[in-house]
Amino acid sequence: MSARVLVVDDVLPNVKLLEAKLTSEYFDVLCATSGEEALSIIARTPPDIILLDVMMPGMDGFEVCRRIKADPRSSHIPVIMVTALDHPRDRVTGLEAGADDFLTKPVHDVALFARVRSLVRLKMLTDELVMREVTSQSLGFRPDGPIMNAGEIEDAFILLVEDQERSANRLAEAMIPVGRVELDLTGESALERATAGGHDLVVISLGLAAVDGLRICSQLRSIEETRHVPILVIVDESNSRELMRGLEIGVNDYLVRPIDRNELVARVRTQVRRKRYAEQLRKTAHQNYRMATTDAVTGLYNRHFMTSHLETLLQNAEQSGRTLSVMMMDIDYFKRINDSYGHAAGDQVLRDFAQRISRNIRGIDLAARFGGEEFVVIMPETDTDFAVMVAERLRAAIEQEPFHINTTTSQAVTVSLGIACTAGHPASLESLIARADAALYQAKNEGRNRVVVARD
Amino acid sequence: MSARVLVVDDVLPNVKLLEAKLTSEYFDVLCATSGEEALSIIARTPPDIILLDVMMPGMDGFEVCRRIKADPRSSHIPVIMVTALDHPRDRVTGLEAGADDFLTKPVHDVALFARVRSLVRLKMLTDELVMREVTSQSLGFRPDGPIMNAGEIEDAFILLVEDQERSANRLAEAMIPVGRVELDLTGESALERATAGGHDLVVISLGLAAVDGLRICSQLRSIEETRHVPILVIVDESNSRELMRGLEIGVNDYLVRPIDRNELVARVRTQVRRKRYAEQLRKTAHQNYRMATTDAVTGLYNRHFMTSHLETLLQNAEQSGRTLSVMMMDIDYFKRINDSYGHAAGDQVLRDFAQRISRNIRGIDLAARFGGEEFVVIMPETDTDFAVMVAERLRAAIEQEPFHINTTTSQAVTVSLGIACTAGHPASLESLIARADAALYQAKNEGRNRVVVARD
Repeated sequence: MSARVLVVDDVLPNVKLLEAKLTSEYFDVLCATSGEEALSIIARTPPDIILLDVMMPGMDGFEVCRRIKADPRSSHIPVIMVTALDHPRDRVTGLEAGADDFLTKPVHDVALFARVRSLVRLKMLTDELVMREVTSQSLGFRPDGPIMNAGEIEDAFILLVEDQERSANRLAEAMIPVGRVELDLTGESALERATAGGHDLVVISLGLAAVDGLRICSQLRSIEETRHVPILVIVDESNSRELMRGLEIGVNDYLVRPIDRNELVARVRTQVRRKRYAEQLRKTAHQNYRMATTDAVTGLYNRHFMTSHLETLLQNAEQSGRTLSVMMMDIDYFKRINDSYGHAAGDQVLRDFAQRISRNIRGIDLAARFGGEEFVVIMPETDTDFAVMVAERLRAAIEQEPFHINTTTSQAVTVSLGIACTAGHPASLESLIARADAALYQAKNEGRNRVVVARD
Repeated sequence: MSARVLVVDDVLPNVKLLEAKLTSEYFDVLCATSGEEALSIIARTPPDIILLDVMMPGMDGFEVCRRIKADPRSSHIPVIMVTALDHPRDRVTGLEAGADDFLTKPVHDVALFARVRSLVRLKMLTDELVMREVTSQSLGFRPDGPIMNAGEIEDAFILLVEDQERSANRLAEAMIPVGRVELDLTGESALERATAGGHDLVVISLGLAAVDGLRICSQLRSIEETRHVPILVIVDESNSRELMRGLEIGVNDYLVRPIDRNELVARVRTQVRRKRYAEQLRKTAHQNYRMATTDAVTGLYNRHFMTSHLETLLQNAEQSGRTLSVMMMDIDYFKRINDSYGHAAGDQVLRDFAQRISRNIRGIDLAARFGGEEFVVIMPETDTDFAVMVAERLRAAIEQEPFHINTTTSQAVTVSLGIACTAGHPASLESLIARADAALYQAKNEGRNRVVVARD
């Protein structure tokens, strides 16, 4: 995947060299020769990834990185620091500033493109979750967006797969500040453990004797449960072909032996942070979905969702020539419950009522709270006779067992139901709902606690 | 990126051959030897991509594909049909059945992996939008999800970049049934045209004389505005290296000259369909976000959003040692407006009121409707003095200009405001809101239309 890359270096020939390399691989390249210029470009034209020189006069690369990561508008953009000196201490400083990876000058093409592609791929995924393009138009920058590098990681759960026992113990011990480590000393049960779940990171040695470490990586990426768990591989210096393959498969980061403990800790924290950030975004999206579609009191779908879904179902029904039925119901004398026992008790009855609906309909049916004490069930591919059967069963289920008001009080409740079917009628949302509503009204008028079918 | 691939073929050696190839590239492979078996595997263990043989006894590949694409639970899974006969008519039948691409037996490795990787990458992106994993736990399959291949495409807007005029005219004419075609006869303004927007697809010839077609593709992928527009390239048979590079960059589909008109139309429709499906998902996610976070009457943030956002801001304020102020306000005698003019007029006043708030606060402030006629403004990095100044300005802006009730009637409105600042207090959400609320109460008691600061 192509992407927009920002190259930051105070030495112009360095900028030009990276620009040429990246352009020849069909990346779109922006350049800056100082930290200040970089920050102003990022604010104006956010890139997909940033290659950032460490040693610059004025604001150095570490400080630029810190500022990028502290701003919610840019904290999600991956930063690769480019260093002339390859000292673990520099790498740790960079990781602590929020850098996602490092390249050592002179920059090797294979490593450069592998890292850029892998980080761009990750960013594209989170971009979909952040919904930058849509929210930036309407709401300005998204003020509830989590910030990538907020908070220290001390409670991670890490699966370590390493069959050299001494190395395994050293690694496990080094990771104690980050959290809890589960150890797999052969790799044979790695997949099983990872699927059992809850890990924030899987650390795998690629030199396992019993199994192919890359195979474990590819399976972790293929299985739904472990797809989003970051993978950090440990490789020998000689093993760069395997490493490149790993990055292609979806490995997120790597460490080359001999391993610097501080760098290990810093890289583990970066991965866990990134994972939790994406998790947070997914959770928010899910919560938004729930809040927008369900009724807070009963947990059923809300009216808005029900009508938009019914619209779609009616189109499908018309295309396929199948009938669809709608059941509209209203709890009899519900106001008396609220008046006698208060609103909390009323809500409890609504919840209990919603549960009885859910238990008495099929998986393909959709139940919604229409408002107040009114509920609707949409039954796709259902004719009037079947709908009446379901309605009668539901009516009986409500009548037969009193509703608990509190530990000592119960209250008998009944429901009136109106049914309308698309058969022989134009499949219009309004007319279907209106007919079901009229049938419900008739059921109320004829004495309640009964099912009436719209007949016209 | 690794992924789970389902291989469907009734001839076992064919299955085994593809399985071996894909496994050696670290894909996770499932196998089926009939259409029925394939459908049952898909229902149980949804793959990321399906390689589907056309010629099978019983249910043939076209029918299997139709069923996969008609089911909302599987319509988003890409299907590559594998055919022994390479006839345009077969390809068109397959595309009309919803297939995403074709491979001809014997299957070449490079083409196989390029196609699989490109489609898997696309699927991973839409997966984030579909939120399959989260919704499948709580709500069952997502009943409002759009179906990929619903509806015929006749209103697409296509940008065609081709400098051979005869070919350009032939292509443009062939695409008439699909929609409107904008023609770029050099490629030099392709990017500009595409950025201007609104295209459902860009069709680019890779043999342009004036510019490098691949460069246009990579720029389209790098620019935010065109990132999600599908690209279909037209290549000469000899040009397979360039094609592979294109797929790597993010080209979505291709056609090899000489071009079959029906296949062109079918491929164009597939791409447009896929694009609109992803657009629909993004739109839904955005709507969910709005509905979950904003108040429907005023368009301001809602109480739920405000409190969760305030929580975050308080943490930031505590860490940075900066003060944060909260302004709570309540429209004076609002009930009288509702009683005199009705609820519609009351809502109009609330909307107008919200707009005056928005006009009188800074970009970093956040305004929310707290409920009823009560509003809250959160002011980060703000001390009491500044907050009072903003509050006074806002109070005056409300008082000075009467609110329009309808074309002939206006109504003078005033507001009472309470202010609380974190300075010298523990940064707790509850206490901050309670103190602002108490100040507001005092403002009401002291005669309304005034600003009171919480003093304790």
